[in-house]
Amino acid sequence: MPSDRGAFITLEGVDGSGKSTQAAMLVCRLRESGFEVVSLREPGGTSISEKIRGLLLDPANAEMSDECELLLYEASRAQLVREVVEPALERGAVVVCDRFLDSTHAYQHGARGLPDELVRRANELGSCGVMPDVTLVLDMDPASAFSRATAGGQDRLEAEGLAFQQRVRADYLACAKADPARIRVIDAAGEPADVARRIDGALATASVLEGVSHHA
Amino acid sequence: MPSDRGAFITLEGVDGSGKSTQAAMLVCRLRESGFEVVSLREPGGTSISEKIRGLLLDPANAEMSDECELLLYEASRAQLVREVVEPALERGAVVVCDRFLDSTHAYQHGARGLPDELVRRANELGSCGVMPDVTLVLDMDPASAFSRATAGGQDRLEAEGLAFQQRVRADYLACAKADPARIRVIDAAGEPADVARRIDGALATASVLEGVSHHA
Repeated sequence: MPSDRGAFITLEGVDGSGKSTQAAMLVCRLRESGFEVVSLREPGGTSISEKIRGLLLDPANAEMSDECELLLYEASRAQLVREVVEPALERGAVVVCDRFLDSTHAYQHGARGLPDELVRRANELGSCGVMPDVTLVLDMDPASAFSRATAGGQDRLEAEGLAFQQRVRADYLACAKADPARIRVIDAAGEPADVARRIDGALATASVLEGVSHHA
Repeated sequence: MPSDRGAFITLEGVDGSGKSTQAAMLVCRLRESGFEVVSLREPGGTSISEKIRGLLLDPANAEMSDECELLLYEASRAQLVREVVEPALERGAVVVCDRFLDSTHAYQHGARGLPDELVRRANELGSCGVMPDVTLVLDMDPASAFSRATAGGQDRLEAEGLAFQQRVRADYLACAKADPARIRVIDAAGEPADVARRIDGALATASVLEGVSHHA
Protein backbone atom coordinates (compact mmCIF):
# COMPACT_ATOMS: atom_id res chain seq x y z
CA MET A 1 0.00 0.00 0.00
CA PRO A 2 1.34 3.49 -0.78
CA SER A 3 2.69 5.21 2.32
CA ASP A 4 0.36 8.20 1.95
CA ARG A 5 -2.76 6.03 1.95
CA GLY A 6 -4.50 5.19 5.23
CA ALA A 7 -5.52 1.69 6.29
CA PHE A 8 -8.83 -0.10 5.80
CA ILE A 9 -9.75 -2.59 8.55
CA THR A 10 -13.00 -4.56 8.50
CA LEU A 11 -14.57 -6.70 11.23
CA GLU A 12 -16.73 -9.69 10.39
CA GLY A 13 -18.56 -12.45 12.23
CA VAL A 14 -21.92 -14.04 12.92
CA ASP A 15 -24.61 -12.02 14.68
CA GLY A 16 -23.67 -11.72 18.35
CA SER A 17 -19.97 -12.44 17.87
CA GLY A 18 -19.03 -9.13 19.48
CA LYS A 19 -18.03 -7.26 16.31
CA SER A 20 -19.63 -3.96 17.29
CA THR A 21 -18.05 -3.99 20.76
CA GLN A 22 -14.63 -4.88 19.38
CA ALA A 23 -14.94 -2.29 16.61
CA ALA A 24 -15.69 0.42 19.18
CA MET A 25 -12.79 -0.68 21.39
CA LEU A 26 -10.41 -0.82 18.41
CA VAL A 27 -11.43 2.67 17.30
CA CYS A 28 -10.71 3.93 20.81
CA ARG A 29 -7.25 2.30 20.95
CA LEU A 30 -6.29 3.59 17.50
CA ARG A 31 -7.35 7.15 18.43
CA GLU A 32 -5.32 6.91 21.63
CA SER A 33 -2.36 5.93 19.46
CA GLY A 34 -2.77 9.16 17.49
CA PHE A 35 -4.39 7.95 14.29
CA GLU A 36 -7.29 9.72 12.59
CA VAL A 37 -9.94 7.01 12.70
CA VAL A 38 -13.22 6.83 10.76
CA SER A 39 -15.64 4.41 12.41
CA LEU A 40 -18.31 2.89 10.15
CA ARG A 41 -20.85 0.11 10.07
CA GLU A 42 -22.56 -1.68 7.20
CA PRO A 43 -25.16 -1.34 5.93
CA GLY A 44 -25.12 2.36 6.72
CA GLY A 45 -22.58 5.09 7.33
CA THR A 46 -24.03 7.71 4.99
CA SER A 47 -27.44 9.33 4.86
CA ILE A 48 -28.37 7.37 1.73
CA SER A 49 -26.85 4.12 3.03
CA GLU A 50 -28.83 4.42 6.26
CA LYS A 51 -32.04 4.81 4.25
CA ILE A 52 -31.13 1.62 2.37
CA ARG A 53 -30.37 -0.06 5.71
CA GLY A 54 -33.90 0.84 6.79
CA LEU A 55 -35.32 -1.05 3.79
CA LEU A 56 -33.08 -4.06 4.44
CA LEU A 57 -33.86 -4.47 8.13
CA ASP A 58 -37.58 -3.66 8.04
CA PRO A 59 -39.55 -6.86 8.83
CA ALA A 60 -42.37 -5.43 6.66
CA ASN A 61 -40.20 -6.21 3.61
CA ALA A 62 -40.30 -9.97 4.21
CA GLU A 63 -41.13 -10.65 0.54
CA MET A 64 -37.75 -9.23 -0.55
CA SER A 65 -36.05 -11.51 -3.10
CA ASP A 66 -32.52 -12.72 -2.46
CA GLU A 67 -31.27 -10.81 -5.52
CA CYS A 68 -32.92 -7.54 -4.42
CA GLU A 69 -31.41 -7.90 -0.96
CA LEU A 70 -27.97 -8.56 -2.44
CA LEU A 71 -28.16 -5.50 -4.67
CA LEU A 72 -29.42 -3.25 -1.87
CA TYR A 73 -26.40 -4.20 0.24
CA GLU A 74 -24.17 -3.38 -2.72
CA ALA A 75 -25.89 -0.04 -3.35
CA SER A 76 -25.43 0.93 0.29
CA ARG A 77 -21.77 -0.15 0.07
CA ALA A 78 -21.06 1.79 -3.12
CA GLN A 79 -22.35 4.98 -1.52
CA LEU A 80 -20.26 4.39 1.61
CA VAL A 81 -17.12 3.72 -0.43
CA ARG A 82 -17.48 6.74 -2.70
CA GLU A 83 -18.68 9.21 -0.08
CA VAL A 84 -16.63 8.18 2.98
CA VAL A 85 -14.12 5.31 2.64
CA GLU A 86 -12.17 6.51 -0.39
CA PRO A 87 -11.82 10.12 0.78
CA ALA A 88 -10.74 8.94 4.25
CA LEU A 89 -8.10 6.55 2.89
CA GLU A 90 -6.83 9.23 0.54
CA ARG A 91 -6.21 11.67 3.39
CA GLY A 92 -4.37 8.97 5.35
CA ALA A 93 -6.99 7.97 7.92
CA VAL A 94 -7.61 4.52 9.38
CA VAL A 95 -11.09 3.29 8.42
CA VAL A 96 -12.65 0.69 10.75
CA CYS A 97 -15.81 -0.84 9.30
CA ASP A 98 -18.17 -3.20 11.15
CA ARG A 99 -19.02 -5.57 8.25
CA PHE A 100 -18.08 -5.14 4.58
CA LEU A 101 -18.14 -7.33 1.47
CA ASP A 102 -17.24 -10.57 3.27
CA SER A 103 -20.57 -10.31 5.12
CA THR A 104 -22.33 -10.31 1.78
CA HIS A 105 -20.49 -13.45 0.71
CA ALA A 106 -21.12 -15.21 4.02
CA TYR A 107 -24.82 -14.33 4.25
CA GLN A 108 -25.96 -14.24 0.62
CA HIS A 109 -23.83 -17.10 -0.70
CA GLY A 110 -22.91 -19.13 2.38
CA ALA A 111 -26.24 -18.93 4.18
CA ARG A 112 -28.87 -18.10 1.53
CA GLY A 113 -27.31 -20.12 -1.27
CA LEU A 114 -26.95 -17.51 -4.02
CA PRO A 115 -24.22 -18.67 -6.44
CA ASP A 116 -20.66 -17.84 -5.42
CA GLU A 117 -19.88 -16.22 -8.76
CA LEU A 118 -23.02 -14.03 -8.63
CA VAL A 119 -22.15 -12.71 -5.16
CA ARG A 120 -18.53 -12.11 -6.12
CA ARG A 121 -19.57 -10.08 -9.17
CA ALA A 122 -22.02 -8.09 -7.05
CA ASN A 123 -19.29 -7.46 -4.46
CA GLU A 124 -16.98 -6.14 -7.18
CA LEU A 125 -19.65 -3.62 -8.19
CA GLY A 126 -20.60 -2.57 -4.66
CA SER A 127 -17.07 -2.19 -3.34
CA CYS A 128 -16.06 -0.07 -6.38
CA GLY A 129 -12.84 -2.11 -6.28
CA VAL A 130 -11.85 -0.87 -2.79
CA MET A 131 -10.66 -3.86 -0.73
CA PRO A 132 -9.86 -4.00 3.01
CA ASP A 133 -6.18 -4.19 3.90
CA VAL A 134 -7.07 -6.61 6.66
CA THR A 135 -10.30 -8.32 7.69
CA LEU A 136 -10.77 -9.67 11.23
CA VAL A 137 -13.27 -12.53 11.45
CA LEU A 138 -14.47 -12.77 15.05
CA ASP A 139 -15.09 -16.48 15.24
CA MET A 140 -17.24 -18.19 17.83
CA ASP A 141 -19.75 -21.00 18.19
CA PRO A 142 -22.97 -19.64 16.64
CA ALA A 143 -25.04 -21.13 19.46
CA SER A 144 -23.22 -18.90 21.98
CA ALA A 145 -23.29 -15.92 19.63
CA PHE A 146 -26.95 -16.48 18.84
CA SER A 147 -28.10 -16.40 22.45
CA ARG A 148 -26.13 -13.19 22.92
CA ALA A 149 -27.54 -11.57 19.77
CA THR A 150 -31.17 -12.38 20.48
CA ALA A 151 -31.13 -11.28 24.08
CA GLY A 152 -32.05 -7.76 22.93
CA GLY A 153 -34.83 -8.78 20.52
CA GLN A 154 -34.76 -9.96 16.93
CA ASP A 155 -34.66 -8.10 13.66
CA ARG A 156 -35.43 -9.66 10.28
CA LEU A 157 -31.94 -11.08 9.85
CA GLU A 158 -31.55 -12.57 13.28
CA ALA A 159 -34.93 -14.24 12.97
CA GLU A 160 -33.33 -16.61 10.44
CA GLY A 161 -32.11 -18.87 13.20
CA LEU A 162 -29.17 -20.92 14.33
CA ALA A 163 -28.66 -23.15 11.27
CA PHE A 164 -28.40 -20.00 9.16
CA GLN A 165 -25.66 -18.60 11.42
CA GLN A 166 -23.79 -21.88 11.23
CA ARG A 167 -23.69 -21.57 7.44
CA VAL A 168 -22.49 -17.97 7.81
CA ARG A 169 -19.66 -19.08 10.09
CA ALA A 170 -18.63 -21.91 7.76
CA ASP A 171 -18.42 -19.47 4.84
CA TYR A 172 -16.29 -16.99 6.80
CA LEU A 173 -13.85 -19.76 7.69
CA ALA A 174 -13.72 -20.99 4.08
CA CYS A 175 -13.03 -17.46 2.83
CA ALA A 176 -10.29 -16.99 5.43
CA LYS A 177 -8.65 -20.22 4.31
CA ALA A 178 -8.78 -19.07 0.69
CA ASP A 179 -7.34 -15.59 1.42
CA PRO A 180 -5.15 -15.87 4.55
CA ALA A 181 -3.10 -12.79 3.63
CA ARG A 182 -6.13 -10.52 4.10
CA ILE A 183 -8.55 -12.43 6.34
CA ARG A 184 -7.47 -13.25 9.91
CA VAL A 185 -9.60 -15.47 12.13
CA ILE A 186 -9.80 -14.23 15.73
CA ASP A 187 -11.07 -16.43 18.57
CA ALA A 188 -13.98 -14.32 19.85
CA ALA A 189 -14.72 -16.37 22.95
CA GLY A 190 -13.98 -15.00 26.41
CA GLU A 191 -13.66 -11.53 27.85
CA PRO A 192 -13.73 -8.53 25.48
CA ALA A 193 -10.28 -7.41 26.72
CA ASP A 194 -8.81 -10.80 25.78
CA VAL A 195 -10.37 -10.64 22.31
CA ALA A 196 -9.01 -7.10 21.92
CA ARG A 197 -5.47 -8.34 22.65
CA ARG A 198 -5.87 -11.03 19.97
CA ILE A 199 -7.00 -8.34 17.52
CA ASP A 200 -3.97 -6.17 18.31
CA GLY A 201 -1.73 -9.17 17.74
CA ALA A 202 -3.32 -9.88 14.37
CA LEU A 203 -3.00 -6.24 13.30
CA ALA A 204 0.67 -6.21 14.27
CA THR A 205 1.29 -9.40 12.28
CA ALA A 206 -0.52 -7.96 9.27
CA SER A 207 1.64 -4.78 9.47
CA VAL A 208 -1.43 -2.89 8.32
CA LEU A 209 -0.70 0.28 10.30
CA GLU A 210 2.94 0.64 9.26
CA GLY A 211 3.43 3.81 7.32
CA VAL A 212 0.06 5.28 8.30
CA SER A 213 0.60 8.79 9.61
CA HIS A 214 -0.18 9.86 13.18
CA HIS A 215 -1.48 13.25 14.18
CA ALA A 216 1.28 15.83 14.65
CA MET B 1 -39.98 -18.73 -26.84
CA PRO B 2 -41.92 -21.72 -25.45
CA SER B 3 -45.60 -21.60 -26.41
CA ASP B 4 -46.79 -21.69 -22.80
CA ARG B 5 -44.76 -18.64 -21.78
CA GLY B 6 -46.27 -15.17 -22.11
CA ALA B 7 -44.57 -12.21 -23.80
CA PHE B 8 -42.39 -9.51 -22.29
CA ILE B 9 -42.60 -6.10 -24.00
CA THR B 10 -40.62 -3.10 -22.76
CA LEU B 11 -40.92 0.55 -23.79
CA GLU B 12 -37.92 2.87 -23.73
CA GLY B 13 -37.11 6.46 -24.62
CA VAL B 14 -35.90 9.80 -23.33
CA ASP B 15 -37.96 11.62 -20.71
CA GLY B 16 -41.05 13.07 -22.41
CA SER B 17 -40.96 10.73 -25.40
CA GLY B 18 -44.49 9.52 -24.64
CA LYS B 19 -43.59 6.10 -23.24
CA SER B 20 -46.11 6.17 -20.42
CA THR B 21 -48.96 7.22 -22.72
CA GLN B 22 -48.07 4.60 -25.29
CA ALA B 23 -47.64 1.92 -22.63
CA ALA B 24 -51.14 2.66 -21.30
CA MET B 25 -52.64 2.62 -24.81
CA LEU B 26 -50.85 -0.63 -25.66
CA VAL B 27 -52.08 -2.29 -22.49
CA CYS B 28 -55.61 -1.24 -23.39
CA ARG B 29 -55.37 -2.66 -26.95
CA LEU B 30 -53.88 -5.92 -25.75
CA ARG B 31 -56.64 -6.39 -23.16
CA GLU B 32 -59.28 -5.68 -25.82
CA SER B 33 -57.63 -8.42 -27.88
CA GLY B 34 -58.20 -10.87 -25.02
CA PHE B 35 -54.72 -11.13 -23.49
CA GLU B 36 -54.04 -11.11 -19.77
CA VAL B 37 -51.82 -8.04 -19.48
CA VAL B 38 -49.61 -6.99 -16.55
CA SER B 39 -48.75 -3.28 -16.75
CA LEU B 40 -45.57 -2.18 -14.98
CA ARG B 41 -43.18 0.73 -14.73
CA GLU B 42 -39.57 0.96 -13.62
CA PRO B 43 -38.33 1.74 -11.12
CA GLY B 44 -41.33 0.44 -9.18
CA GLY B 45 -44.07 -2.13 -9.62
CA THR B 46 -43.75 -3.82 -6.23
CA SER B 47 -44.02 -2.45 -2.71
CA ILE B 48 -40.26 -2.80 -2.19
CA SER B 49 -39.41 -1.47 -5.66
CA GLU B 50 -41.58 1.60 -5.08
CA LYS B 51 -39.68 2.29 -1.84
CA ILE B 52 -36.43 2.09 -3.81
CA ARG B 53 -37.94 4.39 -6.44
CA GLY B 54 -38.59 6.88 -3.67
CA LEU B 55 -34.89 6.92 -2.80
CA LEU B 56 -33.86 7.29 -6.46
CA LEU B 57 -36.17 10.17 -7.32
CA ASP B 58 -35.85 12.16 -4.08
CA PRO B 59 -33.95 15.42 -4.78
CA ALA B 60 -32.72 15.27 -1.17
CA ASN B 61 -30.41 12.41 -2.23
CA ALA B 62 -28.37 14.58 -4.59
CA GLU B 63 -25.09 13.24 -3.20
CA MET B 64 -25.90 9.74 -4.49
CA SER B 65 -22.90 8.20 -6.25
CA ASP B 66 -23.31 6.85 -9.77
CA GLU B 67 -22.57 3.33 -8.56
CA CYS B 68 -25.14 3.51 -5.76
CA GLU B 69 -27.76 4.77 -8.20
CA LEU B 70 -26.95 1.96 -10.64
CA LEU B 71 -27.25 -0.69 -7.94
CA LEU B 72 -30.52 0.73 -6.58
CA TYR B 73 -32.06 0.49 -10.05
CA GLU B 74 -30.87 -3.11 -10.24
CA ALA B 75 -32.22 -3.94 -6.77
CA SER B 76 -35.61 -2.52 -7.72
CA ARG B 77 -35.51 -4.53 -10.97
CA ALA B 78 -34.57 -7.81 -9.30
CA GLN B 79 -37.56 -7.51 -6.96
CA LEU B 80 -39.88 -6.71 -9.88
CA VAL B 81 -38.59 -9.66 -11.92
CA ARG B 82 -38.81 -12.22 -9.11
CA GLU B 83 -42.09 -11.03 -7.61
CA VAL B 84 -44.09 -10.05 -10.71
CA VAL B 85 -42.50 -10.52 -14.16
CA GLU B 86 -41.44 -14.16 -13.90
CA PRO B 87 -44.71 -15.40 -12.37
CA ALA B 88 -46.71 -13.46 -14.99
CA LEU B 89 -44.71 -14.86 -17.91
CA GLU B 90 -44.98 -18.36 -16.48
CA ARG B 91 -48.76 -18.21 -16.41
CA GLY B 92 -48.84 -16.96 -20.00
CA ALA B 93 -49.54 -13.25 -19.50
CA VAL B 94 -48.25 -10.35 -21.58
CA VAL B 95 -46.03 -8.08 -19.47
CA VAL B 96 -45.75 -4.45 -20.63
CA CYS B 97 -43.05 -2.55 -18.76
CA ASP B 98 -42.40 1.21 -19.03
CA ARG B 99 -38.56 1.13 -18.90
CA PHE B 100 -36.33 -1.87 -18.13
CA LEU B 101 -32.64 -2.67 -18.38
CA ASP B 102 -32.03 -0.64 -21.56
CA SER B 103 -32.87 2.49 -19.57
CA THR B 104 -30.06 1.65 -17.19
CA HIS B 105 -27.62 1.30 -20.06
CA ALA B 106 -28.78 4.52 -21.72
CA TYR B 107 -28.76 6.62 -18.56
CA GLN B 108 -25.92 5.17 -16.50
CA HIS B 109 -23.54 4.34 -19.34
CA GLY B 110 -24.66 6.56 -22.21
CA ALA B 111 -25.43 9.68 -20.23
CA ARG B 112 -23.50 9.40 -16.95
CA GLY B 113 -20.47 7.67 -18.40
CA LEU B 114 -20.20 4.58 -16.21
CA PRO B 115 -18.23 1.91 -18.11
CA ASP B 116 -20.25 -0.18 -20.57
CA GLU B 117 -19.01 -3.46 -19.09
CA LEU B 118 -19.88 -2.36 -15.53
CA VAL B 119 -23.45 -1.49 -16.50
CA ARG B 120 -23.88 -4.70 -18.49
CA ARG B 121 -22.74 -6.78 -15.53
CA ALA B 122 -25.09 -4.88 -13.21
CA ASN B 123 -27.95 -5.41 -15.69
CA GLU B 124 -27.29 -9.15 -15.71
CA LEU B 125 -27.62 -9.20 -11.92
CA GLY B 126 -30.71 -6.97 -11.74
CA SER B 127 -32.65 -8.66 -14.55
CA CYS B 128 -31.98 -12.11 -13.04
CA GLY B 129 -31.42 -13.17 -16.63
CA VAL B 130 -34.97 -12.32 -17.75
CA MET B 131 -34.79 -10.45 -21.08
CA PRO B 132 -37.60 -8.69 -22.96
CA ASP B 133 -38.89 -10.45 -26.07
CA VAL B 134 -39.16 -7.07 -27.75
CA THR B 135 -38.14 -3.55 -26.74
CA LEU B 136 -39.75 -0.51 -28.34
CA VAL B 137 -37.56 2.61 -28.29
CA LEU B 138 -39.82 5.65 -28.72
CA ASP B 139 -37.42 7.90 -30.54
CA MET B 140 -37.76 11.64 -30.80
CA ASP B 141 -35.72 14.83 -30.77
CA PRO B 142 -34.78 15.34 -27.10
CA ALA B 143 -35.50 19.07 -27.38
CA SER B 144 -39.14 18.34 -28.20
CA ALA B 145 -39.34 15.58 -25.59
CA PHE B 146 -37.65 17.75 -23.00
CA SER B 147 -40.12 20.60 -23.29
CA ARG B 148 -42.94 18.08 -22.93
CA ALA B 149 -41.37 16.35 -19.93
CA THR B 150 -40.63 19.51 -17.99
CA ALA B 151 -44.03 21.08 -18.54
CA GLY B 152 -45.25 19.35 -15.37
CA GLY B 153 -42.26 20.18 -13.17
CA GLN B 154 -38.87 18.58 -12.75
CA ASP B 155 -37.71 15.69 -10.66
CA ARG B 156 -34.08 14.91 -9.93
CA LEU B 157 -33.52 13.04 -13.20
CA GLU B 158 -35.17 15.55 -15.47
CA ALA B 159 -33.15 18.34 -13.91
CA GLU B 160 -30.09 16.92 -15.68
CA GLY B 161 -30.92 18.87 -18.80
CA LEU B 162 -31.01 18.58 -22.55
CA ALA B 163 -27.43 17.48 -23.28
CA PHE B 164 -27.98 14.57 -20.89
CA GLN B 165 -31.10 13.49 -22.81
CA GLN B 166 -29.21 13.70 -26.07
CA ARG B 167 -26.65 11.23 -24.74
CA VAL B 168 -29.50 8.97 -23.60
CA ARG B 169 -31.02 9.02 -27.08
CA ALA B 170 -27.70 8.28 -28.75
CA ASP B 171 -27.17 5.26 -26.52
CA TYR B 172 -30.66 3.87 -27.24
CA LEU B 173 -30.01 4.14 -30.96
CA ALA B 174 -26.59 2.48 -30.63
CA CYS B 175 -28.10 -0.38 -28.62
CA ALA B 176 -30.87 -0.83 -31.19
CA LYS B 177 -28.29 -1.02 -33.95
CA ALA B 178 -26.35 -3.65 -32.00
CA ASP B 179 -29.42 -5.80 -31.23
CA PRO B 180 -31.99 -5.22 -34.00
CA ALA B 181 -33.75 -8.55 -33.37
CA ARG B 182 -34.94 -7.36 -29.95
CA ILE B 183 -34.85 -3.57 -30.04
CA ARG B 184 -37.14 -1.75 -32.49
CA VAL B 185 -36.91 2.01 -32.97
CA ILE B 186 -40.32 3.71 -33.24
CA ASP B 187 -40.72 7.25 -34.54
CA ALA B 188 -42.42 8.91 -31.56
CA ALA B 189 -43.22 12.21 -33.26
CA GLY B 190 -46.79 13.15 -34.10
CA GLU B 191 -50.16 12.15 -32.73
CA PRO B 192 -50.36 9.36 -30.12
CA ALA B 193 -52.70 7.36 -32.38
CA ASP B 194 -50.11 7.43 -35.17
CA VAL B 195 -47.34 6.29 -32.81
CA ALA B 196 -49.64 3.52 -31.56
CA ARG B 197 -50.08 2.25 -35.14
CA ARG B 198 -46.30 2.17 -35.58
CA ILE B 199 -46.02 0.16 -32.37
CA ASP B 200 -48.62 -2.37 -33.54
CA GLY B 201 -46.72 -2.72 -36.80
CA ALA B 202 -43.45 -3.37 -34.95
CA LEU B 203 -45.09 -5.94 -32.66
CA ALA B 204 -46.58 -7.76 -35.66
CA THR B 205 -43.18 -7.83 -37.38
CA ALA B 206 -41.54 -9.14 -34.22
CA SER B 207 -44.17 -11.92 -33.96
CA VAL B 208 -43.93 -11.51 -30.22
CA LEU B 209 -47.57 -12.29 -29.48
CA GLU B 210 -47.80 -15.44 -31.60
CA GLY B 211 -48.52 -18.44 -29.44
CA VAL B 212 -49.50 -16.37 -26.39
CA SER B 213 -52.86 -17.61 -25.13
CA HIS B 214 -56.00 -15.44 -25.09
CA HIS B 215 -58.67 -15.61 -22.43
CA ALA B 216 -61.24 -18.37 -23.07
